[in-house]
Amino acid sequence: MHIELSRHSSTKLYSQIAVTLGDRIRSGLLTPGTKLPSVRNLSAQLSVSQVTVSKAYAELESEGLIACSQGKGCYVSAGAGKDQTGDEADLSWQLSLMDYLPRAQLWHHFNHVLPARYQFHKAAIQEELLPTREIVANAYKMLSDDPALMANYGSFSGDFGLRKALASVLNGSGMSVTAENLLITSGAQQGIDLVARTFVGPGDVVYMEAPSYTGAIDVFASRGAKIIMVPMDEEGMRVDMLTKLCDLNPPKLIYCIPAFHNPTGVTMSVRRRRQLVDLAQSYHCLIVEDDPFSSLYFNEPPPHPIKCHDQAGHVIYIRSYSKTLAPGCRIACMAAHGSVLSRLIAAKSTTDLGSPMMTQKALQPFIETRLEQHMEQLRTVLRRRLQLALTVLRKHAPAELSWNVPEGGLNLWLKLPAYADPVSLERRAEQAGVSFLPGGVCYAGEADSRHIRVSFTYPAEDKLQEGLKLLCSLIAESRTASPERKPVL
Amino acid sequence: MHIELSRHSSTKLYSQIAVTLGDRIRSGLLTPGTKLPSVRNLSAQLSVSQVTVSKAYAELESEGLIACSQGKGCYVSAGAGKDQTGDEADLSWQLSLMDYLPRAQLWHHFNHVLPARYQFHKAAIQEELLPTREIVANAYKMLSDDPALMANYGSFSGDFGLRKALASVLNGSGMSVTAENLLITSGAQQGIDLVARTFVGPGDVVYMEAPSYTGAIDVFASRGAKIIMVPMDEEGMRVDMLTKLCDLNPPKLIYCIPAFHNPTGVTMSVRRRRQLVDLAQSYHCLIVEDDPFSSLYFNEPPPHPIKCHDQAGHVIYIRSYSKTLAPGCRIACMAAHGSVLSRLIAAKSTTDLGSPMMTQKALQPFIETRLEQHMEQLRTVLRRRLQLALTVLRKHAPAELSWNVPEGGLNLWLKLPAYADPVSLERRAEQAGVSFLPGGVCYAGEADSRHIRVSFTYPAEDKLQEGLKLLCSLIAESRTASPERKPVL
Repeated sequence: MHIELSRHSSTKLYSQIAVTLGDRIRSGLLTPGTKLPSVRNLSAQLSVSQVTVSKAYAELESEGLIACSQGKGCYVSAGAGKDQTGDEADLSWQLSLMDYLPRAQLWHHFNHVLPARYQFHKAAIQEELLPTREIVANAYKMLSDDPALMANYGSFSGDFGLRKALASVLNGSGMSVTAENLLITSGAQQGIDLVARTFVGPGDVVYMEAPSYTGAIDVFASRGAKIIMVPMDEEGMRVDMLTKLCDLNPPKLIYCIPAFHNPTGVTMSVRRRRQLVDLAQSYHCLIVEDDPFSSLYFNEPPPHPIKCHDQAGHVIYIRSYSKTLAPGCRIACMAAHGSVLSRLIAAKSTTDLGSPMMTQKALQPFIETRLEQHMEQLRTVLRRRLQLALTVLRKHAPAELSWNVPEGGLNLWLKLPAYADPVSLERRAEQAGVSFLPGGVCYAGEADSRHIRVSFTYPAEDKLQEGLKLLCSLIAESRTASPERKPVL
Repeated sequence: MHIELSRHSSTKLYSQIAVTLGDRIRSGLLTPGTKLPSVRNLSAQLSVSQVTVSKAYAELESEGLIACSQGKGCYVSAGAGKDQTGDEADLSWQLSLMDYLPRAQLWHHFNHVLPARYQFHKAAIQEELLPTREIVANAYKMLSDDPALMANYGSFSGDFGLRKALASVLNGSGMSVTAENLLITSGAQQGIDLVARTFVGPGDVVYMEAPSYTGAIDVFASRGAKIIMVPMDEEGMRVDMLTKLCDLNPPKLIYCIPAFHNPTGVTMSVRRRRQLVDLAQSYHCLIVEDDPFSSLYFNEPPPHPIKCHDQAGHVIYIRSYSKTLAPGCRIACMAAHGSVLSRLIAAKSTTDLGSPMMTQKALQPFIETRLEQHMEQLRTVLRRRLQLALTVLRKHAPAELSWNVPEGGLNLWLKLPAYADPVSLERRAEQAGVSFLPGGVCYAGEADSRHIRVSFTYPAEDKLQEGLKLLCSLIAESRTASPERKPVL
C-alpha cells in the first residue's frame, strides 16, 4: 500500500497516514472488510517506525473506521465508507457526470446471479447438453500444436480458417458467401452493437418487431435512435404496416429475428422475407437479420434466411454460436457485402482490435466436423423439453393463461390472465424461487405487457416440470393476491 | 490471398480469378495502392499455373483496375473501385448510406497482413517471448476439470476469480482495489471504447498527450469528441498548458499513458500525476490512465499509477495483459469506483454481455502464480533488444536523425531529418520490406509529423539489427531521393 508522506510537513507522520487511510476508507477506495497491511509491513513500506503506524491505526480505530484485534490484524469496518452520510461527499461529484446510457435493461435484469431454483429467465441451453468438453480438448490440441496462434492478434475480421468453416455452414443454409464476406464477433450482441455504432445515430429510424430482443433495443436506444416497433402476426412482422410507417418515417435500419423469433417464437413467412428485401431496396436501408436459432427447429427447418434474397448488400446477417455451442467462447459471425462490410470491420477494429484467437480456434474444429450432428441431437432433446413443458401447461395452467407453441428456439411466450399483475407476480415468483423475463423489457417504450417469457431449455427436465407447475399455481393465485401497488395521488 | 475456385465450372480459371479480384477492388475491399501478390506466389497459393494468373492480371489491367510494371509488380489503380459506374451498380446505393465512423486509422494501418520482412510497425512482443504454451495448458487443465465453466456467460464485469487475482496484482503497484472495483475487458482497446461510449459524446472535450495512441484517438473521434492534444516534455504531459486550455475548454475526460508513453516512451513525473488529479477534482472530470507497459521498465520501475492518488473516483485505470501475456486471449482490466464503474459495467453488458469465460480462465492461473517472474524475464530480454537497437542507431543513423532513449515499453520514437519526406520514406521502406508506424497517425488532426514509431520488441534480434540498419540507410537516401508527390492543381 502506497501512501505519500511529506517529511517536512508540520503534520505528524502518523497523522498523515491516518488522514490518507481515512480518506480512502470514506471514499470507498478501501471497502469494508479489507485487511490493512500489518504494522510491521506498512512501517517497512513507508520507511517509518512501527510506533508511527500503530498510532495511525489507533487513531483510525478511535474514529470507528477500522477494527483491530490481536493476532488477526486490522480490517476496514463494516459501515465505514459509503453509509456514512456526510462522509460520502467524496464520490458525489459523479452524480453530475453526464453519460450516454439511456437504457440498459439487459444489465438490470441479468446482472445479479439469480439464486432462483427454477431459472426460466435465461434464453440458454442446459450446460449438460453443450459440447464444452470436446471444444476445450480441441482447443488444447490445436493451440498446443501451434502455440504461435496465441501470440497473434489475427485479423480484425477474425481468423480466416474459422471464417472459411462458417462460410461453408452458411452456404449450407442457402446463402452464397465466402470467408471474405464474414466478420467474427464476440457474440451476436457485439454484432448488433457494431451495426448500431456504425450506421445508427441520433434520430435515425430503426424498425423492430414488437416485442423484440432486449439487448438489441438497448443498443439502438443507446445510439439515440428513434425506435419504432411493428406488430407481428403468425407470419412475423406486419410488413404491410411497416410499409405505411416508412412513408412518414423512412427507415435507416430494420432489425428482425425471422426464425423462431425471440421472444414470441414466430417464424417469418417467405413472402414477408421477400417483401422486406424489396422495402429495403426501395428505401436504401439496411436489414439486420439476427438468426441464432434457425438450426433449432422441432418439425420443419425454417425458410432460407432473408440474406438469401439479398442481391444488393442490404442485409447484414448475424448468426451466433454462443448459446448453441459454448457460451464461454462468445463466438458469432456476420455476413455482409461491399462497403457495409468494410465499414463494420473498421468499427470492429476500433472496438477491440478483433475477437480473441483462442476462442475462435477452439470452435473451428467442432464447426468443421461435428456441428450438424450436434444440432440434430439438440433438436431431439429440446423438442422433448418443449413437449414436457406443454404437458405441464395443459394440465396446470389457469384457464385464462394462453401461450404460443413455438416450432423452434428456446422460449415460450405466455399471456397472463387479466387479473395477474406482472410486477406483483414477478415479486412473488422470485420469493418462490422461479425466475422469468417480464415481457415489458422486450419493448422500447412503456408497453403494456401481459406477457412473460419462459425459456424451457435451461433447467433440467424435472426442474422444468416442477418449476412450471409452481409458476402456474402462482399465476392462479394472482386472482386472489391483493394488489401490492396503490395508485399514487 | 484466398480465392475460391471452382475447377468444374465452365468459366475458365483465369476468368474466375479476374472476376473475384475485380469484385474486391470495386467493392473497396482491395483499396487503391494495394500491392497484389506476385504471379509466382498467387499461382502457388491457388495451385494454378503462372500463365493463368498472368492472364487474370492482364484482364484486370485491361479493365483499368490494376496497373502492373516490370519488376515492381501489380497494384490496385488509383480511382479503381468507387469511381467506376456501371459495374458496381448493385452495391452503389451503399455509397449514400451515412455512417458514424469519421476515422479509423488503426484499421487503415493494420488491416492487411503486412508481408514486411522487418516488422517495426506493431507495438507487440516477439511470439517466442510469450508464455502461450503454458497458458494454453493451464486453460486445458482448468476447463477440463470444470467444463461447466464453458457453458456459462459469467458476469458482465468478468470472472470473479480472475478479478481477484488482478486486484492483488494492482495492489502490488500501490493501488487499493478489490475484485469489486474491476471490470474485465477484451483488451485495453475495448476499455477505452467503453469509457468513450459511456461518457463521451458530440462536442465533449477530451484531452490527450500529443502524440498519443492511434486506437484511442479513433475511439474518441468516433464519438464526436472535441479532441485537444497537449504537448509533452520530459516529465510527460504539460499540465501547465493543460490547465490553461481547460479555462476555455473545460474537460470531460483526460486520456493519458503515464508510464513509458506510446509512442514517445516518456514517463510522467509524480508531480504531474498529482497535478492531474487535482485538475480532475476541480473540473469534476475523468482521467483515463492507460497503463499497458508499467511492468516493462529497463532501469527503475515507474512511479505509482495516477490511480493511487485518486481519492474520489476520478481515475479509470486500464491495464492490459494482451501484449505482455497472450494476444490470443485479449484480456485487460479496468479499475474504477462508484457509479462510474457501474455505468461502465452497464455499457459492457450492451456491448458484448461480458468477455468470454475461456480466455479469462486461461489467464487466471498464470496471473496468480507466474506473472512477476515472467515480467522479470521480459524486462531482461527487452532491455537487451533496446541496447541492440541503440547500438545500430548510434552506428548507422544519418547525422540528422534523432531519437529518445525509452526507459521502458516497446517503442522508439525517431525524429526524421528535415530532408526526409515521411510519405515517400514509408513507400520506399515498404518496398524494401521494412514497416513502421508513421507519426502522423498519432495525432488527432493533420499534424506535422517528422516522427516515426519503431517498435523494437517484435522482430528477433538479428532481424531487429538488419532491419534498423536498412531503415537508417533508407532515411539517409531520402536526401537524394526525388519527391514522389507533386502538388495537385
